Amino acid sequence: MAYDLLKGKKGIIFGALDENSIAWKTAESVHAEGGTFVLSNAPIAMRMGQIKDLAAKTGSQIVPADATSEDDLNALIAKSMEILGGKLDFVLHSIGMSVNVRKGRHYTDEKYDFTAKGWDVSALSFHKVMQSLYKADAMNEWGSIVALTYMAAQRVFPDYNDMADNKAYLESVARSFGYFFGKEKKVRVNTISQSPTPTTAGQGVKGFDGFISYAEKMSPLGNATAQDCADYTVSLFSDLTRKVTMQNLFHDGGFSSTGVSQEVIDYFSK
Amino acid sequence: MAYDLLKGKKGIIFGALDENSIAWKTAESVHAEGGTFVLSNAPIAMRMGQIKDLAAKTGSQIVPADATSEDDLNALIAKSMEILGGKLDFVLHSIGMSVNVRKGRHYTDEKYDFTAKGWDVSALSFHKVMQSLYKADAMNEWGSIVALTYMAAQRVFPDYNDMADNKAYLESVARSFGYFFGKEKKVRVNTISQSPTPTTAGQGVKGFDGFISYAEKMSPLGNATAQDCADYTVSLFSDLTRKVTMQNLFHDGGFSSTGVSQEVIDYFSK
Amino acid sequence: MAYDLLKGKKGIIFGALDENSIAWKTAESVHAEGGTFVLSNAPIAMRMGQIKDLAAKTGSQIVPADATSEDDLNALIAKSMEILGGKLDFVLHSIGMSVNVRKGRHYTDEKYDFTAKGWDVSALSFHKVMQSLYKADAMNEWGSIVALTYMAAQRVFPDYNDMADNKAYLESVARSFGYFFGKEKKVRVNTISQSPTPTTAGQGVKGFDGFISYAEKMSPLGNATAQDCADYTVSLFSDLTRKVTMQNLFHDGGFSSTGVSQEVIDYFSK
Amino acid sequence: MAYDLLKGKKGIIFGALDENSIAWKTAESVHAEGGTFVLSNAPIAMRMGQIKDLAAKTGSQIVPADATSEDDLNALIAKSMEILGGKLDFVLHSIGMSVNVRKGRHYTDEKYDFTAKGWDVSALSFHKVMQSLYKADAMNEWGSIVALTYMAAQRVFPDYNDMADNKAYLESVARSFGYFFGKEKKVRVNTISQSPTPTTAGQGVKGFDGFISYAEKMSPLGNATAQDCADYTVSLFSDLTRKVTMQNLFHDGGFSSTGVSQEVIDYFSK
Repeated sequence: MAYDLLKGKKGIIFGALDENSIAWKTAESVHAEGGTFVLSNAPIAMRMGQIKDLAAKTGSQIVPADATSEDDLNALIAKSMEILGGKLDFVLHSIGMSVNVRKGRHYTDEKYDFTAKGWDVSALSFHKVMQSLYKADAMNEWGSIVALTYMAAQRVFPDYNDMADNKAYLESVARSFGYFFGKEKKVRVNTISQSPTPTTAGQGVKGFDGFISYAEKMSPLGNATAQDCADYTVSLFSDLTRKVTMQNLFHDGGFSSTGVSQEVIDYFSK
Repeated sequence: MAYDLLKGKKGIIFGALDENSIAWKTAESVHAEGGTFVLSNAPIAMRMGQIKDLAAKTGSQIVPADATSEDDLNALIAKSMEILGGKLDFVLHSIGMSVNVRKGRHYTDEKYDFTAKGWDVSALSFHKVMQSLYKADAMNEWGSIVALTYMAAQRVFPDYNDMADNKAYLESVARSFGYFFGKEKKVRVNTISQSPTPTTAGQGVKGFDGFISYAEKMSPLGNATAQDCADYTVSLFSDLTRKVTMQNLFHDGGFSSTGVSQEVIDYFSK
Repeated sequence: MAYDLLKGKKGIIFGALDENSIAWKTAESVHAEGGTFVLSNAPIAMRMGQIKDLAAKTGSQIVPADATSEDDLNALIAKSMEILGGKLDFVLHSIGMSVNVRKGRHYTDEKYDFTAKGWDVSALSFHKVMQSLYKADAMNEWGSIVALTYMAAQRVFPDYNDMADNKAYLESVARSFGYFFGKEKKVRVNTISQSPTPTTAGQGVKGFDGFISYAEKMSPLGNATAQDCADYTVSLFSDLTRKVTMQNLFHDGGFSSTGVSQEVIDYFSK
Repeated sequence: MAYDLLKGKKGIIFGALDENSIAWKTAESVHAEGGTFVLSNAPIAMRMGQIKDLAAKTGSQIVPADATSEDDLNALIAKSMEILGGKLDFVLHSIGMSVNVRKGRHYTDEKYDFTAKGWDVSALSFHKVMQSLYKADAMNEWGSIVALTYMAAQRVFPDYNDMADNKAYLESVARSFGYFFGKEKKVRVNTISQSPTPTTAGQGVKGFDGFISYAEKMSPLGNATAQDCADYTVSLFSDLTRKVTMQNLFHDGGFSSTGVSQEVIDYFSK
């Protein structure tokens, strides 16, 4: 698809890791729609070979930044405005990581240093990004900020661990900061609550395959893919959605509104 | 249990059909807690032999009323105040029936006469009950009105059919009327969103056994039983919950906040 | 704006009354985006002079239909496919009317014939439209059905009367039918919960001006206008939102996520 | 009121500061209902003179503990079981503090050391309390854990600052831990989302008086008081609510379901 929906719009895309990642697909789609942007990722998470391909393909520059560091974020924003030639119209936050998950700590056996680190990276980083943008007055009016989240913020998925709590915090930050960004700068802030997606990051989670399969059977339209999410993000960056703000938007083929599907119930009937 | 929690309180209990029904268990529990009440049911739904046993056991009188008839309701309320010797403190609405379900009409093939009848019985009747109470000024201050509902009002359960839409309407009526009953009469109005419960009514629904089993596996504390619901209703009739109003209260062992349980996901993993 | 987002897409737009109405603006925007459609309205509600102008401007035909009549709807759908040359890709349901409101009956003094009529027109009509579409197999895969609603379905606005309960029913129908339309036909169904909008219909509601002003002060981005809603509807009809279904989408400048705004609280502080 | 509802039940009550605090009122009510407990508070927050009065009045012992310290919590739990002679049946978490609020930092100008400290005290402490209880197997079956929260977790109240995000995290912890506590130990976990309450802590918040007044006008039953909250907490500790878990329970006189009240709208109408 290509409609020039984002022609002339500038932004920053955080979290493109490899071609399976949602941020990667979003970068491609935003580029196809005429948007220009800077790609950013944590220095430690960058797979330089791959992200350089994306940058080349989309005519973008890469500016590494640790999204938990105010200094890095301030520098990134200044640099991005310089590169792009002005204020920003869109930002995608696609950043998340739980040390407890990585280290195999169960939710009832958290190591709290890990918890704090995961919270800083996955949840507080969204506040930090917005606070840096806000203080630098870096967003154009009617700009759009989007972060990716997951329904574990509302309902328990046992293996999702402390990421559930981080996502709840992240979604709250979207509302809280969205209020001030709306009032003072006419900028909207939303989260997309996406289907479980087989990204490279997602694949690390225990029981992920079974869960993808369950979610597929529970979703009347099937799971939303990374490409679907890129399309939806484009619509939220476009001028068609200017009055949507402080919302958590389920993008999941209907999973969130399905109590049980016929396929699933059939497993439990004789 | 018996704590005299409802000593001196008077009310009406709609919908006690037989000993499996929630209203039946509630009547027993309210009686045990010192409350007195009138039992009411649709003339057509009454199983006289059985409800007379309940009346005898709880020292109650039975006043039949079609809850879709304003005249019946007005007469019931007048009679109840006469029998009980004053205004009312609690009302339980446990009434629901879908003609489309009974006649085997699929949700995508509704017969709209059936739909209108089911809506009147299951949803609008709650407004009618409250409007009659309100106009007759029949509730004491800090009285409590409760209706039973089901989570299909929020999420789809394919076999629940048009009862889902009826329950959504019912829950809205609780909020809308709760506003005026609160402001003008200091009366609270809430709905309890109960686990699927193997009542005689519930058992008629297609696929109900499989669904009960699924819900049991999805609920960390297991399904709430009819007796559990009676206990919970007692707490909502008591003076301990005076400022809870216009709420839909999930009483379901945690089902509503569980995205998936380990037992369920195990079915979908190799 | 014009991006050819709906090029080649066909549909039906219900409820364009005059140039203040959301359906009217949506028709203009859909036309600008390359979509073609039939305009429909209740024979009784049609202001023929005006809607003919809209039809002329957008190259559309007008097919009157009473949305509470299955026969009318079946005829409309058959006629529309004939006119447009194939199955449909989008449908907008913008229909609502409360007889209790019109006749000045308070929510605690409903006349139930009025209530039933309002429910049929405002809520059940959405089921009827979809059932007719479903049975006629009239929607293309990845089609999109949208109905307009209001937040009174979740929270009480005292003057909104029984329309609150109708909207709760309507939103439930979107979920319930969305499940089957998704599973069987890959069609999505959503509701837009729009800011109070000064349409000709809205203006009839008591206290509407004060409420518009209050909502404006409570919404960080201000109220969403009819034109904003048309834009948003275009995004939901487009291929960018294919996996969004069974959702109630707040389009309100942030009102729904604002507990109180600074402007409003200032009224209550010394 | 006194019904012996908690006869024989043992627990820990965190956060009784002075006679205005909810935890203080809860301690009195739990005592009146026959429950026995240990009082705990942060060493730094203890007003020894006052809390000793409460201890004397309720026959309780005081065990200071920093709720952010796993060692303190482990010691507290061991000591409490020793004092009370067995496992616990109830726990109240009433702990919260934002350094950003105290230091006058606006939400768009957070100091992140302050944010992290407030999150640890207000939100993560609830996980720490439960993890310590869980690992020590300190709860009896059908025990009940309650934490206090506020609706800022769902909707923005501009002066509530980062406490909104902390409360969102806290509510998520209730769900996440509630799943495991339910499955493994048959213990329920809920949060009460209480009206703004003029506690000594609350009074420190900027604009609090105006907000209390606004909330009073918006709530059909008026704001819930600290004593009301104590009553409600008793019901949640009792055996009447055994199947209520993983819920966030609004206890607010109807505020949360009120879009606008007549009194408030009158301010905005001519």
